[in-house]
Amino acid sequence: MNDFKLSAADTTRLQTLLDTVANGTAGFLGYPVSKDFDYSPLMPFLQYPLNNLGDPFIPSTYAVGSRDLEKEVVAFFAQLFRAPANDWWGYVTNGGSEGNLYALYLARELYPKAMVYYSAATHYSVQKNIHLLNMPAIVVRTQDNGEMDYDDLENTISMNRQLPVIILANIGTTMTEARDDVKRIREILDKTAIRQFYIHADGALSGSYSGFLENRPAFDFADGAHSIAISGHKFIGSPVPCGVVIAHKSYRDRIARSVAYIGTMDTTITGSRNGHSPLFLWYALKRYGIEGMRARAMAALEVAAYATSRLREIGVAAWRNPDTLTVVFPEPPASIRNKWQLASENGWSHIICMPGVTKALIDTFIHEMETAMPEAPQEQLYNMSFV
Amino acid sequence: MNDFKLSAADTTRLQTLLDTVANGTAGFLGYPVSKDFDYSPLMPFLQYPLNNLGDPFIPSTYAVGSRDLEKEVVAFFAQLFRAPANDWWGYVTNGGSEGNLYALYLARELYPKAMVYYSAATHYSVQKNIHLLNMPAIVVRTQDNGEMDYDDLENTISMNRQLPVIILANIGTTMTEARDDVKRIREILDKTAIRQFYIHADGALSGSYSGFLENRPAFDFADGAHSIAISGHKFIGSPVPCGVVIAHKSYRDRIARSVAYIGTMDTTITGSRNGHSPLFLWYALKRYGIEGMRARAMAALEVAAYATSRLREIGVAAWRNPDTLTVVFPEPPASIRNKWQLASENGWSHIICMPGVTKALIDTFIHEMETAMPEAPQEQLYNMSFV
Repeated sequence: MNDFKLSAADTTRLQTLLDTVANGTAGFLGYPVSKDFDYSPLMPFLQYPLNNLGDPFIPSTYAVGSRDLEKEVVAFFAQLFRAPANDWWGYVTNGGSEGNLYALYLARELYPKAMVYYSAATHYSVQKNIHLLNMPAIVVRTQDNGEMDYDDLENTISMNRQLPVIILANIGTTMTEARDDVKRIREILDKTAIRQFYIHADGALSGSYSGFLENRPAFDFADGAHSIAISGHKFIGSPVPCGVVIAHKSYRDRIARSVAYIGTMDTTITGSRNGHSPLFLWYALKRYGIEGMRARAMAALEVAAYATSRLREIGVAAWRNPDTLTVVFPEPPASIRNKWQLASENGWSHIICMPGVTKALIDTFIHEMETAMPEAPQEQLYNMSFV
Repeated sequence: MNDFKLSAADTTRLQTLLDTVANGTAGFLGYPVSKDFDYSPLMPFLQYPLNNLGDPFIPSTYAVGSRDLEKEVVAFFAQLFRAPANDWWGYVTNGGSEGNLYALYLARELYPKAMVYYSAATHYSVQKNIHLLNMPAIVVRTQDNGEMDYDDLENTISMNRQLPVIILANIGTTMTEARDDVKRIREILDKTAIRQFYIHADGALSGSYSGFLENRPAFDFADGAHSIAISGHKFIGSPVPCGVVIAHKSYRDRIARSVAYIGTMDTTITGSRNGHSPLFLWYALKRYGIEGMRARAMAALEVAAYATSRLREIGVAAWRNPDTLTVVFPEPPASIRNKWQLASENGWSHIICMPGVTKALIDTFIHEMETAMPEAPQEQLYNMSFV
């Protein structure tokens, strides 16, 4: 079949796309995606159809995959998230959204009559997942910084005390990277005497590095979460979207189902599973090690602090939540939003200082902001309590 | 961050895994995965985080992706599957399973009170999806060749005529690659006077090449299906699992939801979507063209016919459904099953003559089968009606 070739026109289209993608990657600041990865030593694997069919912890008859490395990736995060030593399980997903879907599915199987609570700042894919799973849900108010309004949570739970409780806590909201406090949520559940409850931590971006912080936020198993999902293509970086979900092994057993066909007990969402993304994550974890990962987080946080100061210097009312990579500021003109691919919502935009974003890139951005926004400084926002 | 390096021990582990994967790929015959792909010209894209966020047909603020090529892939299959010219939509999924989940979700939104019907030979992931979606379902009996038992379907529907009907038709079952006949299913729906119904064709393997056959099976939109899902890593081939789902655009609009955050209407299952797999599929479609794809299917079918004859010659009761790549035969000894990665179920195994499987590889397999199975020929199975 080697006589089939791409036409000259199509070859040109590919080259044009590659240039566009290269430029687009160099220029974006608005999405939580690391761009400093280098997986060139793994390219030879792309010749093969790596498929980690079904549960990574149960052998399969299909031998072309990366199950052993996947298990090491899962073990790394189970430990980082302080999961109980003999009661953890997980797998590498196609992204944070699949991890949340899996966790909510697990929670539904445990408590079929439960009410789901999540804050108004939650990523839209969670609503989609809850709808897919056919679960009832209540949206809880947020504070100005994007964190859950705990009083509203307590009131809402109090009014529905007959129902088991499933809470999706954001460990970094999409817009402001606010972290819901899992310990405070547990206290509210104690106070309202709820016995049947499940807390899932959606740690898409911040969950991947919060475990490296000196002032560790309350987000993991030791703090009271029952499962945690993170994205792999965000803080760590990966050419394809991926993620990791960690849950109690004992809970996962509830949705186990024996499947003769692939010679495995399949408890994952999809059947065929990408065997390359575990390889990317394994490579990154091995290459950096835990100290390298910590250094990576610290370097990015420093750039975020730098960007916040520089924006304020030019009169932009920028702010960020403590220990986050996301710098929030009033929506700039469309020319800036388009060029730097800045998402915006309700009059706010953000840049996200992912690993790979340099101070030099921030300087360029600041310069363009200064040129595009000659208005008076927006002093009125400087004193927001959560700056 | 370039001072972080993989240890020598980890580098060795990677090399060992690469060798294992290369050997494992050369040796497998039991899984419906093509191994003759060559995407080396696309490797430069793997340096970038391609992400086709949300709906491919609606622009996103994130500019690092392959949306335009994805739309061409979707258009190719919409045409091949004879979707109505102005009423099709689709996207590139993470595999056949996600496509089925999407289609069943669509069907549930259209007919929330419907009963789902699928045959006993249906892939286990469909059951998983139906459970995830919280839908009621009835399993229909199969004929000996793995095709749906239409009488049983008719009887079962007749007994539940008060309910809308959702049917998942297998266009190639996992074990015997049997195709359910969508035209006959439509006739049964007419006969039972069911007005509210939805037919989804799970075309994981066979759906990808059935459109190229001279005796075209009844499986697509013109035959009466409302959506079709196929796998991309099976007939076409891809290093990562992927697929395509095609549905009526008017139905997809039902689950559209405006999402300010990514500046797109997200109607897909996940939020972040792999932008590399559409690129793989586009490249393969452009490289082969429709005639090249047809030739690819014909060549594989010829190898399947050859394998069936050769197995029979050595006394193995092998058979296959018409125009399929799957050769079914009684479960061989474990040594053969393990070496060639053959799945087995209820005493049967199969080999799948995917593109890339050569007659020479079949000869080697036949030789090993002959050596491992010195028993008397299993003549009794030769006369099965579906041979």
